[in-house]
Amino acid sequence: MSEKPKIGLDLFGGDNAPNSNLEGAIFALKNGYIDELYLIGGEESLKNDLPKEIRSRIKLIKAENIVDNHTKPTEVLKLKKSSIYIGNEMMKKGELDAFVSAGNTGALLAAGTFITGRISGIDRPALVIPLPGKGGKPRILVDGGANAELKPAHFISLAKEGVAFAKFLGIKEPKVHILNIGTEESKGTKLVKEAAEYLKSDPKINYIGFVEGRDIFEKEIDVIVTDGFTGNNMLKTIEGTAYYILSELKEKISNGGLLVKLGALLMKKSLKGLKSSLDYRQYGGTFFLGINGILVKAHGSSDSEAIANALSVANKAVKENIVDKIKEML
Amino acid sequence: MSEKPKIGLDLFGGDNAPNSNLEGAIFALKNGYIDELYLIGGEESLKNDLPKEIRSRIKLIKAENIVDNHTKPTEVLKLKKSSIYIGNEMMKKGELDAFVSAGNTGALLAAGTFITGRISGIDRPALVIPLPGKGGKPRILVDGGANAELKPAHFISLAKEGVAFAKFLGIKEPKVHILNIGTEESKGTKLVKEAAEYLKSDPKINYIGFVEGRDIFEKEIDVIVTDGFTGNNMLKTIEGTAYYILSELKEKISNGGLLVKLGALLMKKSLKGLKSSLDYRQYGGTFFLGINGILVKAHGSSDSEAIANALSVANKAVKENIVDKIKEML
Repeated sequence: MSEKPKIGLDLFGGDNAPNSNLEGAIFALKNGYIDELYLIGGEESLKNDLPKEIRSRIKLIKAENIVDNHTKPTEVLKLKKSSIYIGNEMMKKGELDAFVSAGNTGALLAAGTFITGRISGIDRPALVIPLPGKGGKPRILVDGGANAELKPAHFISLAKEGVAFAKFLGIKEPKVHILNIGTEESKGTKLVKEAAEYLKSDPKINYIGFVEGRDIFEKEIDVIVTDGFTGNNMLKTIEGTAYYILSELKEKISNGGLLVKLGALLMKKSLKGLKSSLDYRQYGGTFFLGINGILVKAHGSSDSEAIANALSVANKAVKENIVDKIKEML
Repeated sequence: MSEKPKIGLDLFGGDNAPNSNLEGAIFALKNGYIDELYLIGGEESLKNDLPKEIRSRIKLIKAENIVDNHTKPTEVLKLKKSSIYIGNEMMKKGELDAFVSAGNTGALLAAGTFITGRISGIDRPALVIPLPGKGGKPRILVDGGANAELKPAHFISLAKEGVAFAKFLGIKEPKVHILNIGTEESKGTKLVKEAAEYLKSDPKINYIGFVEGRDIFEKEIDVIVTDGFTGNNMLKTIEGTAYYILSELKEKISNGGLLVKLGALLMKKSLKGLKSSLDYRQYGGTFFLGINGILVKAHGSSDSEAIANALSVANKAVKENIVDKIKEML
């Protein structure tokens, strides 16, 4: 770890790139979220547009190839002048401590795995997602969608990534569960039953047992391990359910009488707080863990605030050396 | 189909059995939800406790073996004097048109499949669940948890069961989607990609494409097909998310000031309505479709009202001949 973390940002990734990315970067530098930024995809000519007081803390790195949401994951390995390729290459060479991108998830995973490279002893890097829940603390879902299909033994990598991330977020001795459709050992697919045996047999994993979807928000849940298909579907189902509930509530208010509308007005702040307490982006960016570097995936629809938060969390992950937290468990 | 549907009820199944089951049965008979009831598990001595005006419409059928939540699914096939076995046996013989149980889901599926028997041409009976959603109409999830592991070709059975149920609930020309983690054809597991090819190739299925978890509540979604592991996990995630949101809201109200509490009071009815609009039990019982009879699964925690509703929906399914709706698609 360097004294001053060297953070890279993909200027091109995300629905609101490059404007929000640039604004987020400037905000993060101005407010001391980060010390040094490598803006990957930034032309030299951009320099004059940067505020004077932070200009010396930004390095501009040219990129040429475009990676968008139609780029197939492995294609990025041939696009050696893309921002995603360059960011990972710099991480591999030690020129960057962390790389943040709001770009194509599959391409990022491929680049992280094959350019930056896996941690030796980890066979599946995965997307690690902090979810809100009861007790005011996050719970970690892994895999959030990096690997649609997995073998039981891969759950060991996933569990260790989840535990490292939970520790990074301040959870002591994280308890690990596997997502299943029942808590009895006889329940579920061959995959989860065999995965449970693997987690039980690893002394470095505090494996508790199965957890059902209805209980993932409970206080005692720290790490939820599942394959990327189930995990990604779960994330999207949570999102869809929350959105549906809030839109039903909105409709009930707009169809309600004057008193209902008054009630809603009085509860405005609570209702707004409800929405944000459900937002899993509140913890600022999710990580691809298991690779030998810090690769932060900002949401595709990130605005400047989300980009600034992702840069901040990347900076913190460098300082706390999240990669070593995984290595300690191997 | 008989003139007066002969409906069977498992007196022993469910957390609140036998009391709630009996009360629900009496209520359903008194209110004309059903004409004739076969109370399976009812001793002859019970007769005198039944209200006089409905006594002649109830037949009591003795049962001896107990099936509980610890009974393994296939064990029920040996428990020939259990209510679940007897109900299915009577359905097989044509002595019952429908059988309702709030008992062990796995045991019910096994008994339905092996005692009542599958519809010829259907290779996987499944649990068919109506979910609430936008546009004031239900959408059908299949498989809700009967078959944790499936092959791609099985999705044809599932789709036809879902379509039959959607039609039964009044949806014309139901549109069929497969649940996936992206809508592009290249996304997801081998299972869903191959399943999509099967559904595309069947002219009797109006297959539209993939749907993501975040969009299942949208207006245009009628039937969502998925394997039983994913489907059951999805149901439980919806339940968990809804419960978490409502409990957060409750907390915000109880921690809020006087005005927030006043606001909540004014919105009381809307908030209550919100809760019930999310309850997938509102459509009254879910079905195991694909077997050669009408097997209704009432929720394990059914109260007397839920039992009465399940009896009513079973009665309606006999009258509308839901089994033939599936056969028409074969």
